[in-house]
Amino acid sequence: MTGRSNKLGSVGLVKTHHVELYSQEKPLQLESGATLGPVTVAYETYGKLNAEGTNGLLLCHALSGNAHAAGYHSPDDKKPGWWDRYIGPGKPFDTNLFYVICSNNLAGCDGTTGPSSIDPKTGKPYALSFPLVTIDDMTNLQKALIDHLGVKKLMGVIGGSMGGMIAMQWALAYPEWVDSCVIIASTPRLSAQNIAFNAVARQAIMTDHHFNNGSYYDQECRPETGLALARMMAHITYLSEEGLHQKFGRRLQDRDELSYGFETDFAIESYLNYQGSSFVKKFDANTYIYITKSMEYYDPFPDPATTLEQLKPVNARFLVISFDTDWRFQTSRSKELVNTLYRHRKDVTFQEFASPYGHDSFLLDLPPFQESLQLFLKRIHLEESRRGDPR
Amino acid sequence: MTGRSNKLGSVGLVKTHHVELYSQEKPLQLESGATLGPVTVAYETYGKLNAEGTNGLLLCHALSGNAHAAGYHSPDDKKPGWWDRYIGPGKPFDTNLFYVICSNNLAGCDGTTGPSSIDPKTGKPYALSFPLVTIDDMTNLQKALIDHLGVKKLMGVIGGSMGGMIAMQWALAYPEWVDSCVIIASTPRLSAQNIAFNAVARQAIMTDHHFNNGSYYDQECRPETGLALARMMAHITYLSEEGLHQKFGRRLQDRDELSYGFETDFAIESYLNYQGSSFVKKFDANTYIYITKSMEYYDPFPDPATTLEQLKPVNARFLVISFDTDWRFQTSRSKELVNTLYRHRKDVTFQEFASPYGHDSFLLDLPPFQESLQLFLKRIHLEESRRGDPR
Repeated sequence: MTGRSNKLGSVGLVKTHHVELYSQEKPLQLESGATLGPVTVAYETYGKLNAEGTNGLLLCHALSGNAHAAGYHSPDDKKPGWWDRYIGPGKPFDTNLFYVICSNNLAGCDGTTGPSSIDPKTGKPYALSFPLVTIDDMTNLQKALIDHLGVKKLMGVIGGSMGGMIAMQWALAYPEWVDSCVIIASTPRLSAQNIAFNAVARQAIMTDHHFNNGSYYDQECRPETGLALARMMAHITYLSEEGLHQKFGRRLQDRDELSYGFETDFAIESYLNYQGSSFVKKFDANTYIYITKSMEYYDPFPDPATTLEQLKPVNARFLVISFDTDWRFQTSRSKELVNTLYRHRKDVTFQEFASPYGHDSFLLDLPPFQESLQLFLKRIHLEESRRGDPR
Repeated sequence: MTGRSNKLGSVGLVKTHHVELYSQEKPLQLESGATLGPVTVAYETYGKLNAEGTNGLLLCHALSGNAHAAGYHSPDDKKPGWWDRYIGPGKPFDTNLFYVICSNNLAGCDGTTGPSSIDPKTGKPYALSFPLVTIDDMTNLQKALIDHLGVKKLMGVIGGSMGGMIAMQWALAYPEWVDSCVIIASTPRLSAQNIAFNAVARQAIMTDHHFNNGSYYDQECRPETGLALARMMAHITYLSEEGLHQKFGRRLQDRDELSYGFETDFAIESYLNYQGSSFVKKFDANTYIYITKSMEYYDPFPDPATTLEQLKPVNARFLVISFDTDWRFQTSRSKELVNTLYRHRKDVTFQEFASPYGHDSFLLDLPPFQESLQLFLKRIHLEESRRGDPR
């Protein structure tokens, strides 16, 4: 542990690393049939890999996340990584026990190859010539990273929201590598309503006056208006109605009386504007449209007739978690997955936690959820350490 | 009853009428302190006013409605008015019993004065110089219409969604005129989440490249992109997740395989696109931003200390109705209103109906809901006819 000694349980100062895992000559094979190369992956690790290479813990981020899950990049950073409250010595993703890995997803905009990366064939950013990638592709790229890092087994693959889809895919695609799988606030497949919200978000971006068919990287203006709209709308779905009510209600913003005009009257409007405008500074609009498509395409069990065969080799013990106020991916969606796993005799635990925070609960302070993660992963660590048979 | 005799219970061919109720010299006084004149109202009526003028039934439309609630404007019309299935001889809003009135709301874009109307001071459309109007203002304008039509009493004021807010305001502002008040799929006030969705919708319109600060009427292009986005997003909230699942699920649109591109893959995307593009042909973007603000401003009981006094003169018998899958205005929002009325000893009946259609249920075929409306209004008609004491 380095850095800020005053931060109890912090991983301290960390760095994002970059590695080219596929080249133009040896490209990544995509589910669509297309290939992609070179492919660079941005990743961070916390804790130490044991001699057998068996204590890996892979964290899969959601739509807008990145590789910087914990700690600080510089002593001046105001905010730590996005899942910092859950990563560190003594925390659920315990760096005393695990070698914790987080990488920016394929098609991302934070160091891993995506639509804003340079296409070697043209010397310009890919934009919409970037191939459409899937959850399977993201998982396969992470597998290459795991191999590169010398990890032989993952004691856990853990993800919230879209990250939960990637975690699920790990258990299916690489059963021998995955001891446990924690799927939080997620769903086995997007519903019509989920797709609908994504479709409107994409339309907001793609009809932005500055979108220019995705080739906006050398323009003065980017499709920030559309991206902000997409984010604002999505943000509403990440929070619970009750949470918004408690936090904002009908409180006015910086005024005592209604404006009787189109200024910002209510605090919730001001908050959403802030969410939109801060998001566009750090996120790429093309990544947004690619990643939402990836989520829509994921449907691991499309045919009940083949589910048994798909799940037969799966060894992972599953922990599936939902939050009672999450209406983006309701508890019923988690149960759908739990039922599928349970019917096929997989080791699956399900928990629903009460939380005022809606879909975003997994990113926030929620002690019972935190405790549950910790207990589950400690058990896995104990069982796997006892077993002591690294493959 | 005229027109299509093959349509059982239809009001047949109807006309929208227009009347100037306020002039530039004698303007409408608005809640904001501003004045507005001239003010024209577009309205339709079905059935006959009785000699005493006491059998009025006022229907208040929601955000995107208009005065054309029933029947056909021409024998070639493909669709009847928006609430046709509930209006006509033998239907809940029974034209054999009632003189049914529906007018386009103030700030509308279908004949009643709104931001697209000509400002007599400039000879150009008001655009954003149109004053911000409130639910109270809309109600007051309807009252002027009722007076103009010689109606002395309304046996019922009925509205769904925003129309329910106007109906509520009628009972509060004109207690002597309102025998009954039916508030459907509505809420006494918008929540933070409701405001949030409106705010994003307005932002979509107001950041549209063609918005031009609302002065787009003489432009070749109008802010149709933004308005379509607003409508698509709102439309998602009008339908239930279950309803969308049943109707669309993850069905692909006109293809057997995923596109692996940004074409329309899923049927739900195609449906939403259709909703957006058909809406912009008939609705004005400025009206959209004005009306959403009006809804946000409505809060009839801001201070519990004055609620008793406000409700004391209210004579209306209330029927409050919600739908179990409505998540725009959930049942709990109706109950909030019911509890306020009940605590203050008002005559209030509450019903929640099971429906797969979400918020839009009140516009669709739902026999138990239909029956409930019919029974309630028949009872009111019977009681009021027996009473026979027109004020």
